[in-house]
Amino acid sequence: MLNVYLSGEIHTDWRERIVEGASGLDVAFTGPVTDHAASDDCGVAIMGAEESKFWHDRKGAQLNAIRTRKGIADADIVVVRFGDQYKQWNAAFDAGYAAALGKSLVVLHGPDHAHALKEVDAAALAVVEQPEQVVAILRYVLSGELPG
Amino acid sequence: MLNVYLSGEIHTDWRERIVEGASGLDVAFTGPVTDHAASDDCGVAIMGAEESKFWHDRKGAQLNAIRTRKGIADADIVVVRFGDQYKQWNAAFDAGYAAALGKSLVVLHGPDHAHALKEVDAAALAVVEQPEQVVAILRYVLSGELPG
Amino acid sequence: MLNVYLSGEIHTDWRERIVEGASGLDVAFTGPVTDHAASDDCGVAIMGAEESKFWHDRKGAQLNAIRTRKGIADADIVVVRFGDQYKQWNAAFDAGYAAALGKSLVVLHGPDHAHALKEVDAAALAVVEQPEQVVAILRYVLSGELPG
Amino acid sequence: MLNVYLSGEIHTDWRERIVEGASGLDVAFTGPVTDHAASDDCGVAIMGAEESKFWHDRKGAQLNAIRTRKGIADADIVVVRFGDQYKQWNAAFDAGYAAALGKSLVVLHGPDHAHALKEVDAAALAVVEQPEQVVAILRYVLSGELPG
Amino acid sequence: MLNVYLSGEIHTDWRERIVEGASGLDVAFTGPVTDHAASDDCGVAIMGAEESKFWHDRKGAQLNAIRTRKGIADADIVVVRFGDQYKQWNAAFDAGYAAALGKSLVVLHGPDHAHALKEVDAAALAVVEQPEQVVAILRYVLSGELPG
Amino acid sequence: MLNVYLSGEIHTDWRERIVEGASGLDVAFTGPVTDHAASDDCGVAIMGAEESKFWHDRKGAQLNAIRTRKGIADADIVVVRFGDQYKQWNAAFDAGYAAALGKSLVVLHGPDHAHALKEVDAAALAVVEQPEQVVAILRYVLSGELPG
Amino acid sequence: MLNVYLSGEIHTDWRERIVEGASGLDVAFTGPVTDHAASDDCGVAIMGAEESKFWHDRKGAQLNAIRTRKGIADADIVVVRFGDQYKQWNAAFDAGYAAALGKSLVVLHGPDHAHALKEVDAAALAVVEQPEQVVAILRYVLSGELPG
Amino acid sequence: MLNVYLSGEIHTDWRERIVEGASGLDVAFTGPVTDHAASDDCGVAIMGAEESKFWHDRKGAQLNAIRTRKGIADADIVVVRFGDQYKQWNAAFDAGYAAALGKSLVVLHGPDHAHALKEVDAAALAVVEQPEQVVAILRYVLSGELPG
Repeated sequence: MLNVYLSGEIHTDWRERIVEGASGLDVAFTGPVTDHAASDDCGVAIMGAEESKFWHDRKGAQLNAIRTRKGIADADIVVVRFGDQYKQWNAAFDAGYAAALGKSLVVLHGPDHAHALKEVDAAALAVVEQPEQVVAILRYVLSGELPG
Repeated sequence: MLNVYLSGEIHTDWRERIVEGASGLDVAFTGPVTDHAASDDCGVAIMGAEESKFWHDRKGAQLNAIRTRKGIADADIVVVRFGDQYKQWNAAFDAGYAAALGKSLVVLHGPDHAHALKEVDAAALAVVEQPEQVVAILRYVLSGELPG
Repeated sequence: MLNVYLSGEIHTDWRERIVEGASGLDVAFTGPVTDHAASDDCGVAIMGAEESKFWHDRKGAQLNAIRTRKGIADADIVVVRFGDQYKQWNAAFDAGYAAALGKSLVVLHGPDHAHALKEVDAAALAVVEQPEQVVAILRYVLSGELPG
Repeated sequence: MLNVYLSGEIHTDWRERIVEGASGLDVAFTGPVTDHAASDDCGVAIMGAEESKFWHDRKGAQLNAIRTRKGIADADIVVVRFGDQYKQWNAAFDAGYAAALGKSLVVLHGPDHAHALKEVDAAALAVVEQPEQVVAILRYVLSGELPG
Repeated sequence: MLNVYLSGEIHTDWRERIVEGASGLDVAFTGPVTDHAASDDCGVAIMGAEESKFWHDRKGAQLNAIRTRKGIADADIVVVRFGDQYKQWNAAFDAGYAAALGKSLVVLHGPDHAHALKEVDAAALAVVEQPEQVVAILRYVLSGELPG
Repeated sequence: MLNVYLSGEIHTDWRERIVEGASGLDVAFTGPVTDHAASDDCGVAIMGAEESKFWHDRKGAQLNAIRTRKGIADADIVVVRFGDQYKQWNAAFDAGYAAALGKSLVVLHGPDHAHALKEVDAAALAVVEQPEQVVAILRYVLSGELPG
Repeated sequence: MLNVYLSGEIHTDWRERIVEGASGLDVAFTGPVTDHAASDDCGVAIMGAEESKFWHDRKGAQLNAIRTRKGIADADIVVVRFGDQYKQWNAAFDAGYAAALGKSLVVLHGPDHAHALKEVDAAALAVVEQPEQVVAILRYVLSGELPG
Repeated sequence: MLNVYLSGEIHTDWRERIVEGASGLDVAFTGPVTDHAASDDCGVAIMGAEESKFWHDRKGAQLNAIRTRKGIADADIVVVRFGDQYKQWNAAFDAGYAAALGKSLVVLHGPDHAHALKEVDAAALAVVEQPEQVVAILRYVLSGELPG
């Protein structure tokens, strides 16, 4: 069985495409909370409001870290997706975190980001552009079967 | 003695300001190669040209990783600077890498980046805006002396 | 599934409130023996009486350590509760122990103790005042659902 | 050479008595910042004021953690002193942190605290009442010489 | 659930007394091969005869190490029994091995061996004389129940 | 239960002989993809063609590493088979990788290779010539039963 | 430079023969306190008398552990000597402790003990009978020079 | 300062070319004993003759392991050279060992071996053909200077 953590972009359907494509494979997926509003406000919603945006964010980010650290720690493979927009520093942070723990890293991004992501890619065992390639990787790793 | 690794932005003089400010303190600084061209081309310069930009970058990034991994592994404190420009995913990657190794993380960035960096800041023991604050931190950690 | 260790105060019903509140969630709870007399006397009851109170206590504390160390080592999250009374140094010890192992730490205490517990809180990913907030954290970490 | 970290109480001269007593021994001592005011306010002094006392304390406690974690990580022996006053939860936290890292723990406290500290004592390799006994321990560990 | 490794003496029924006494408890027991002849000769029986007794023993001891290392590595608690006869250096070796891995160590021996075993006992969380006391420890660790 | 990783030669039926021989034993076997063509071409088949044979190979080898690293990391025992032909450097690499992780290593090769493999054999707990001997080892480790 | 810990027998001059034989080599030796009386009584001499011999021994053994654990942790090579007399369980305990930490183990004993020490020998990288052979090993490891 | 371990082929002057080329750089080199005869016979020369070639080799290989394991464990960078001849399984073993410890791996071989070494190369941060390229890598890692 493979434990796979899906980190990064939350504004497209890449996670769904991987999860659906991998249906039937012996894979358990985890990932961050992908509801943007909940993820941003979870800290103050549970632990009380903050006047300062900085501490508002801190409370939320540390609460989310309980989930993301367990997900990455339990994972065999960490897939990190960089989308077309936003800074996505948390994605790169997760990639570094996973690399330092010796996890197998798979990076998913379009060709435009290749140069800017070269250090992240260099720590990965696979770099792909499409979620379906991640599915093909999972299938091959589990069964040795190649596409087509 | 403190070993301090200075990661991130290479286009302003923040490293110089820290190193000069800390002169007289018992600190040894390390960091990546900050000559942009050398850092980009080191791989092919030493190991031979590549037709594909992707592998050109890979060779360079992996060679640079020999230096950066040692620097971070040997560090007591990893300072990560996010400047105003560029994606700087390697900086966030280093922050995640350092966090997973249990290093003391200090993050240096302007207030505009605070929300986008909230996961990185949440893993840090200090978040500051100016290099001189990093110097003050190093002085305090070593001697207990506060500014002013 | 989350493994959660509940450390600290044994004189109020905070554990029960968390366990009941979390019924239906995929959580397994562990914790120390909370029968005060058994916990104090277990060592001599099983391994023979001691004349000296110091060694009486030692035998019991080391026997209890078999249980608490396993509980903390197996936990994803360690919740440490500081009540209104007593020194509760074992609670702070558990917090330090959990922090050094990289466990996600949640600290539960009233506002009066905030300053005295600042080092413990600073190692935590969440600080709350009510057991129901711990339940809300567990629910959010597992499902992304927020209260209300 | 022995690296010894002196954790805990900051209101009596126990550290001085150990350091002086050990003069001539091959020991390097480290410890937290013991200037109470500096230790409490270092965070806001360097990183900017906070309206909330909770975050004022957080900033300071995390900054101090840079020093204390390095001190404990580098130590062969961690001595933790519990004085007669205050909650001293940070001392117990340090003891737990040191124990989880496998450091040799020496606990220093009066007989009145013995029962309340039984879990901390049970993790220690030595429990003593006087700073001079710590000196005797360091001398014996280094040279095999006993007092008297 | 507790994983318990039973190391040491193979000439009395102490393992049976523990396993039977613990029936009904959530414990899984492992241990070395206790058939003396098989344990001595397993190496040559499977891998071919040796002229030299030294290598005959080596082959067997290394084969047995496959089993004992896994047993100890997977254990929460390692119980080491020293009987009245023989050198039993493998028992003391297992105790040291378990201690270095941070396992909870329980040592079982008669009072006559107390002084000779003081270093081993000093690494243990419990020292007892009878197998039934080991059962009582396991019951207490799992349920908090004391005998009688 | 034993997790056993079968590394090395892919041109004879040694894996089948072990798996069949061990039927009925509580063993789970893993290993690399043994379809030579799939193993060589998996990288480009999933991630796109490469002009250079070197990078063609790199893509495949890193993809295969996702499977092999998990297999070795999860294993209790790593069996490495050296056949009569080819360089088989990946087999020796796996042996070194497993040794550094503290896995129990079993090496399987004919007598002709003994001198060239002396460093690999010296890191092993067992060295055998026939797959049936591996089966006998697994049976003995699990049950204490010897052949014949 | 090699750090070498010399564990075990304290009644013959084997340590002196090694240290003298290795004069001129780049080796730093450590070891336990070898004054039998001091080693037995150090605990009570520094920390106060005990009525019970068991706790008298415990205090001493734990104090000695501060020294021995540091010595073994800092060592590249741990040499364990088994003499002709006594149980020497602490020597076997040190051997197991060193083995679990991955130290290079050298065992020194006469041929009469070979069978009883087979598990200890099987964890060693060298087994010798004379202190001069240990010196020859150290010289070879440092310089590649062989005797004669 | 960089610690560099030079593993592999012992029949050409590649080590000398690296050491000479790196004169003036802040590098400390270690490596195995490269006197073939001494390396083969060291075990029996010090520990006594063996009738069986297998155990003759075992004694030597384990003695050499004391040196090689320390060299690799202390290294920042492990360079592994594969020459044109022989099986060189010990070189591949060292590469796997170094990779599992997270060392920066540099592999040095001619183009003919590229396919057979693809798994080893895939674990490396640099793959080169000439010793002078290793020197250029060390210079760049230390100073950021590129050749020419």
